[in-house]
Amino acid sequence: MEFEKYKSCIEACNVCAVYCDSCATACLQEDDVKMMAECIRLDRQCAQICRLAASFMAQGSEYAKDICRICADICKACGDECAKHDAEHCQECAKACHHCASECAAMAA
Amino acid sequence: MEFEKYKSCIEACNVCAVYCDSCATACLQEDDVKMMAECIRLDRQCAQICRLAASFMAQGSEYAKDICRICADICKACGDECAKHDAEHCQECAKACHHCASECAAMAA
Amino acid sequence: MEFEKYKSCIEACNVCAVYCDSCATACLQEDDVKMMAECIRLDRQCAQICRLAASFMAQGSEYAKDICRICADICKACGDECAKHDAEHCQECAKACHHCASECAAMAA
Amino acid sequence: MEFEKYKSCIEACNVCAVYCDSCATACLQEDDVKMMAECIRLDRQCAQICRLAASFMAQGSEYAKDICRICADICKACGDECAKHDAEHCQECAKACHHCASECAAMAA
Repeated sequence: MEFEKYKSCIEACNVCAVYCDSCATACLQEDDVKMMAECIRLDRQCAQICRLAASFMAQGSEYAKDICRICADICKACGDECAKHDAEHCQECAKACHHCASECAAMAA
Repeated sequence: MEFEKYKSCIEACNVCAVYCDSCATACLQEDDVKMMAECIRLDRQCAQICRLAASFMAQGSEYAKDICRICADICKACGDECAKHDAEHCQECAKACHHCASECAAMAA
Repeated sequence: MEFEKYKSCIEACNVCAVYCDSCATACLQEDDVKMMAECIRLDRQCAQICRLAASFMAQGSEYAKDICRICADICKACGDECAKHDAEHCQECAKACHHCASECAAMAA
Repeated sequence: MEFEKYKSCIEACNVCAVYCDSCATACLQEDDVKMMAECIRLDRQCAQICRLAASFMAQGSEYAKDICRICADICKACGDECAKHDAEHCQECAKACHHCASECAAMAA
């Protein structure tokens, strides 16, 4: 299939979207939701751009690099925020975000 | 993470979305595009509902089953249409669709 | 255009998605975020299903009714939750959700 | 509501997404689908980025400008392609795309 060349980046985007969606839900169930507000805010955007990036790569779009460049920025910001929190869902999400940021940056280069 | 229980269904949805997006692009490059029109039409819808289903499961949504029920129907229809065409992208997409249809049907049950 | 027959429902979905996305952000900036957690949780899902419903109607999909049926349920739940909160963003979002619920229910009938 | 300042751009994005989704379906029903292949290909991407742009503006995202910049490019390309075809759905879609391109360019400036 045409998308094979983007496979590792597509996979990183899909995994990151799942972790972000899941992390946002878990953050909303924390005792101190206010402390997680920035995390929730970025998780939403990160999940959305990751899914778009995966779709554009799968379509072989000439705009996939442009999307991946922004996706790398958002993943970095989201991962940095998640990394500040000790909850397991945040720590695992941070890893998925940082991995996706690096895949997307390489793709956009 | 919370989403572990849906892991195989989420993964099937993500993979199916990628195959459908990619198959639609490949269909548009075929010599006889008209013959692929129904395939392209269903690929678009299938990729969209698969991404929504993955997101709702990752969020632990109480509506995930409802979405998976429709997703199973669309994946079945899309897989059946793809299976009619000999092109490799259609045959592989058909497999991804039928696998996802069965994962989503099990999830919705 | 083909989508004219769904015009009022598509418009209601688009408007509802915008109010839900905006309401979630505003909720995250409230002093008592914990009180808004359920609202944020439903806003996310509501915005997503509304955008999918609008897209499926615009595509003239045979699955548009199925999606609108679920969309009506989610809009109703989200509107009911928003209506409990006095903040202007919640009150306006509740109106957009309840209007969209009624448009989608009519469409699905 | 917070999103009032982006209102005309959000509306242009929502309208453009609907026209693109609808145009793609209509293109797939044309006698000469092959002639419409590039139009269908761009319609898909344009509808997707428009919906993301609308959502990011509604959320008040700090990345909304970045998304609108790409959205302007894709809308321009899609509108230029649609404008080449005489079918009413293409001509109307071209107008919606070009209007959205100009709104997004202004937003990103």
